Amino acid sequence: MQNAGLGTQDSGLGTIASAVVLLSGGMDSTTLLHYVVKRLAVGKVYALSFQYGQKHRCELEAAAWQASAVGVAAHDVVDMGFFRALTAGGSTLTDPSMGVPRLADLRAEQLSQPPTYVPNRNMLLLSVAAAYAEARGVCDVFYGAQAQDRYGYWDCTSDFLCRINAVLALNRRRPVTVHAPFVTLSKAAELGLGRELGVDYAHTWTCYRGEAEPCGNCPACVERGAAFREVGRPDPLLA
Amino acid sequence: MQNAGLGTQDSGLGTIASAVVLLSGGMDSTTLLHYVVKRLAVGKVYALSFQYGQKHRCELEAAAWQASAVGVAAHDVVDMGFFRALTAGGSTLTDPSMGVPRLADLRAEQLSQPPTYVPNRNMLLLSVAAAYAEARGVCDVFYGAQAQDRYGYWDCTSDFLCRINAVLALNRRRPVTVHAPFVTLSKAAELGLGRELGVDYAHTWTCYRGEAEPCGNCPACVERGAAFREVGRPDPLLA
Repeated sequence: MQNAGLGTQDSGLGTIASAVVLLSGGMDSTTLLHYVVKRLAVGKVYALSFQYGQKHRCELEAAAWQASAVGVAAHDVVDMGFFRALTAGGSTLTDPSMGVPRLADLRAEQLSQPPTYVPNRNMLLLSVAAAYAEARGVCDVFYGAQAQDRYGYWDCTSDFLCRINAVLALNRRRPVTVHAPFVTLSKAAELGLGRELGVDYAHTWTCYRGEAEPCGNCPACVERGAAFREVGRPDPLLA
Repeated sequence: MQNAGLGTQDSGLGTIASAVVLLSGGMDSTTLLHYVVKRLAVGKVYALSFQYGQKHRCELEAAAWQASAVGVAAHDVVDMGFFRALTAGGSTLTDPSMGVPRLADLRAEQLSQPPTYVPNRNMLLLSVAAAYAEARGVCDVFYGAQAQDRYGYWDCTSDFLCRINAVLALNRRRPVTVHAPFVTLSKAAELGLGRELGVDYAHTWTCYRGEAEPCGNCPACVERGAAFREVGRPDPLLA
């Protein structure tokens, strides 16, 4: 586990000169970006976002705002436009013919891999991030998986992270390691950390629908709302 | 290992109704495509090729020819144009400012990961193939790694394959398995199998340079030439 000493200066990670951070523009990866820059004091941070066919650009706009706010070395948005057609029918997040469900409407048997899961997306994004890091001589990639996504997303778990690192460890010249310091942290705990780090959550985007206002009832909105309630703060996006 | 009984009707794989085959248009993946269609008798084959920034289109043209020759259910060419810029400086196969080396000019210490290695490419291609398979309800992906690439490419080894499958096995609804039936086969043995299967190697492309004629001295050309010599046949590309 890489999350030892999250509340202190000691992350257990030692000194990291440069890192790649996967930045979707949601709460988890935004908090992670601030954590890597401010708490781990990584000197050179490359933020990487992805256009993989998600139905809106709100989160990419938030990502750009946050990357600029912390002053990254570079922020690249990878155009994976091919992904939507290639995985048609695979996810309500990318297929225009499939509506995003309300959390309340999901059946119990759907929860272990809900229709908002995107086929093998996270392995794909981490593969791109590792290639990008390797080509730049960067050894560390940061990934914003947090504990509450474990219920429905096999590719947000510690086990997944471990196995991804087992693959990458085979590289004979420049093995890249993926760190997910929040993988055992609840969303509320992460939010608490983000507030310590001065994260402005008005510039994050969580809702799966991407309409003018967050819908408040998709799984992502419900989880975000619960985290803000748990720390006793209003969500600035709803202010 | 998945290559038991390669020379017989019994592949050890049982009956497979549909499969995705990674098809670069080189000798290995072309032989694999014919093997999956003709020997494994997979009914519905989806061939997947990639434009990832390689310096020529010769192999993609060969891939299209072969996909059509065996009659696949679909042949998709995935546009990963982003990859070249994202991994600039990472490989002589994609960076226009880096020349493809002659095999004879490589130093001994370069051989374990030569400049013709492309950063994390194979993990990336397999991640896309697994997503594509998963979205279509296909459980099996075929990958043309063969034994002789083991010397320089960690991402063509049995160990790599095993660890990729360990990641994919975590999927809770539709785990995809990657098979590399030639991973312990020499290129010459594979060529022998291809001739049994009636593969027309005039429509394959191996040379890393992609000029009008194969160069004959890049690592890929040298290995292809050695395989044809070993089976005592002329290379139809040089006829």
